[in-house]
Amino acid sequence: MSSKIKTAISPTRSEDYSEWYQQVIKAADLAENSPVRGCMVIKPWGYGIWENMQRIFNGMFKATGHRNAYFPLFIPLRFLEKEAKHVEGFAKECAVVTHHRLEEGPDKKLVPASPLQEPLVIRPTSETIIGEMFAKWINSYRDLPLLINQWANVVRWEMRTRLFLRTTEFLWQEGHTCHATAEEAREETFQMLDIYAQFAEKYMAMPVIKGEKTESERFPGAVATYAIEAMMQDRKALQSGTSHFLGQSFAKAANIKFLNSNGQEEFVWTTSWGVSTRLIGALIMAHSDDDGLVLPPKLAPAQVVILPVIPNDEVKEEILSYCQELSSELQNVFYNNHPVAVEVDDRDLRGGEKFWSWVKKGVPIRVEIGPNELENKSITFSRRDKEHKQRMTKSRDEFIATVVSELDDMNESLFQKAFDFRAKHLAKIDTQKDFYEFFTPENSEKPEIHGGFALSHWSGDSDVEEQVKNELNVTIRCIPIDGDDEEGKCVISGKPSRKRVIFAKAY
Amino acid sequence: MSSKIKTAISPTRSEDYSEWYQQVIKAADLAENSPVRGCMVIKPWGYGIWENMQRIFNGMFKATGHRNAYFPLFIPLRFLEKEAKHVEGFAKECAVVTHHRLEEGPDKKLVPASPLQEPLVIRPTSETIIGEMFAKWINSYRDLPLLINQWANVVRWEMRTRLFLRTTEFLWQEGHTCHATAEEAREETFQMLDIYAQFAEKYMAMPVIKGEKTESERFPGAVATYAIEAMMQDRKALQSGTSHFLGQSFAKAANIKFLNSNGQEEFVWTTSWGVSTRLIGALIMAHSDDDGLVLPPKLAPAQVVILPVIPNDEVKEEILSYCQELSSELQNVFYNNHPVAVEVDDRDLRGGEKFWSWVKKGVPIRVEIGPNELENKSITFSRRDKEHKQRMTKSRDEFIATVVSELDDMNESLFQKAFDFRAKHLAKIDTQKDFYEFFTPENSEKPEIHGGFALSHWSGDSDVEEQVKNELNVTIRCIPIDGDDEEGKCVISGKPSRKRVIFAKAY
Repeated sequence: MSSKIKTAISPTRSEDYSEWYQQVIKAADLAENSPVRGCMVIKPWGYGIWENMQRIFNGMFKATGHRNAYFPLFIPLRFLEKEAKHVEGFAKECAVVTHHRLEEGPDKKLVPASPLQEPLVIRPTSETIIGEMFAKWINSYRDLPLLINQWANVVRWEMRTRLFLRTTEFLWQEGHTCHATAEEAREETFQMLDIYAQFAEKYMAMPVIKGEKTESERFPGAVATYAIEAMMQDRKALQSGTSHFLGQSFAKAANIKFLNSNGQEEFVWTTSWGVSTRLIGALIMAHSDDDGLVLPPKLAPAQVVILPVIPNDEVKEEILSYCQELSSELQNVFYNNHPVAVEVDDRDLRGGEKFWSWVKKGVPIRVEIGPNELENKSITFSRRDKEHKQRMTKSRDEFIATVVSELDDMNESLFQKAFDFRAKHLAKIDTQKDFYEFFTPENSEKPEIHGGFALSHWSGDSDVEEQVKNELNVTIRCIPIDGDDEEGKCVISGKPSRKRVIFAKAY
Repeated sequence: MSSKIKTAISPTRSEDYSEWYQQVIKAADLAENSPVRGCMVIKPWGYGIWENMQRIFNGMFKATGHRNAYFPLFIPLRFLEKEAKHVEGFAKECAVVTHHRLEEGPDKKLVPASPLQEPLVIRPTSETIIGEMFAKWINSYRDLPLLINQWANVVRWEMRTRLFLRTTEFLWQEGHTCHATAEEAREETFQMLDIYAQFAEKYMAMPVIKGEKTESERFPGAVATYAIEAMMQDRKALQSGTSHFLGQSFAKAANIKFLNSNGQEEFVWTTSWGVSTRLIGALIMAHSDDDGLVLPPKLAPAQVVILPVIPNDEVKEEILSYCQELSSELQNVFYNNHPVAVEVDDRDLRGGEKFWSWVKKGVPIRVEIGPNELENKSITFSRRDKEHKQRMTKSRDEFIATVVSELDDMNESLFQKAFDFRAKHLAKIDTQKDFYEFFTPENSEKPEIHGGFALSHWSGDSDVEEQVKNELNVTIRCIPIDGDDEEGKCVISGKPSRKRVIFAKAY
């Protein structure tokens, strides 16, 4: 008979990872499917994470000279048509507005009326419409670089959707920049990739690998696409942010020219880069456990929750006011340039139910205040990255003085855990046999080391990409930027290769 | 011969108010029309105002217990159909998505493909889709009140558009709340109306009148609609925020029920309330002058701009570093709970051109730093609400110590000016003859007092509304909440009336 430990989330990660993911989202009340096909509703706890992400990114973008603006939701068909590869890449998933009015039909049901002369596409990304505007804004080299970011909703008609990871409508930021030279545009592309990597590692506590995408995974119309790739707990890769060097292709499509300092007309060089609500999916899968969400402290909508434990009505008021005072004092402490985010949960719920609801929501620090704490001026607390039953006690003053270091320590421990996990499941693989075994662990004799990221040689052959995709559902996630050159042979074709790349199954 | 004063904006307000408005927006680089019919591009300086508005509103909403969330862009037709008056109100202006793919047509042009089984409407407002979700979220009285806000883009297919004031796509916030009783829902409606009024008066420096809309101007489906109305400099009214008591009509349409504390099932009572990027139009028209935009200090993307005045290359570096130091010191000062927003404009432009560009952009305080200031450790500055040539001098320390009071003083002076202007153009009018004269100043013998808000008796007769709308293009802006009851006779029909209302021409 198996003595199974009871977990707050069922199924567990090992039982059914995909269903576990859905159940974590549900238990933490982050989001849910809407009645509109493929579109999600982001609930307050999930949206709070997104707001924190926005705030932090805005700081990083502004510090590097970018400014926010807003462009139309709609793109006229003719704009999309101008860049051949771009339209080819997006035509299959565009929502199209064809009418601008509703009328009562014969059976009293509403039907679309007043057809548009030219249909409008809902932006799947905004290079084309923003390019049209940039062409008007830029005259001379004095107008460059032009560094713009937009926070917006975009729509891509996805056939199979999953909360946060792939939805028909999603929220994102898209940066769009114009430069006088290819070098400057390339520098910008790398700068933004670095910012994404810093954000992932510092704020999401999630290690990432920076690299270039192969041609088959390139953004439609780009000269080069770079991405950060993270390993989820099922050892699959999740692409968490992309930065594109667009060369002059979109500049030529939209006719974005400038007079250089010699008075000659040239096309600008452009970049674009984005992250989306997909990051919330990454955050969930990187850190959460079989008891629910685990939030990296810097992104938690509440970093500390205070739970009053009231044995009888006599002490109720005193305990509640102790909790409120503690809350105010904590909010005077700054963490990551912002007041510590605190909630006092005084709902009329049973203690166990309340305690577990915050475990499932992933709040970094849970504080319990009852008569003992009141008497001793102490704080009993537990941390989401440790055993739930492991309660620690500090004096009130000490707790307030050390709350920042507790949060930092948790952030560090989440990062280290994810880093170690990735290290364990990243393997240099040099033979086709080992490669196939690695990605079919169910057939393997050594299951404990199998599955994850394979760091293997690849000669640049797209046939190899096709073969491993068809046979193993494995793709090249990226050609790492930081990797050293090294002579070798392609793990599949045996052709000479000068660099290892990351192969993995992916979201 | 007329000795016309040269202004930075042409035409002036008195020459052509409507064109002046467009030219102020252009000169301040706030926004522009896009190639997509009726949709605008909000440029960084305009979007910066919107970000400040969002930040301040978020603080006010959260302080009153509201939380942000996000709902789908699309509304299935069948949801919209459920509330009869609502669909009637919006059907004429809905953008409709009918296809989810593009294909090459016979002439190689792209055409919409893959028609949807059920067309999707792009939200003109979200009561119906949010109601569907609320019905799932609410079970018992313990789940109430439910207080949600959303920041989003919405689309209403407007035939005649104008930057910020009326655009096909616009940005807004929409609050949606559910309550156990009608009283609570009414209280919420008034609370949010008060928050809008506070925002307008405290942050926009724009006096407003709070009041109820007549039936003909009510939100489609609402039991009662309340609004804040402001007077623009052409004496027209601009509705700047609305708050709706929706009764149980949307609850019944979406089946939002709860178990009350006696275990009986009831429909909830709902409210909704919103403000949009229209507020930026209001801000422009309330304060700007014939030299361009005038920004209320609390909403300015930059509150202080520092302009280095460099007579020769020898002093350049020294002056620039003095400017940067001053900028850092100012950013350590808090105004309205945020660091003072400062820009140093070190562009290589002629001094006059640079100076005037910031006048036109409406920055509250312009600082000029040249060799004299360097030598005397002084600051020469001018304020956007005073004569441009009126330069003031303070010691550097004094300037830093008093920058907050300068900003507050400017805020106060803008409010007072707008308040006095409204007082001058608000008249109690008691005869039909005076009323007609008031709204046709071109035919009047007393043009100096004519046009503006008429505070006149009205008996509740919709015929009167129709008459003055058709004959004078005048509408009832609102029935003031704060006005005292007073016996009288309708200014048009002569029927007995118990209250004066605000009549005006409006945006």
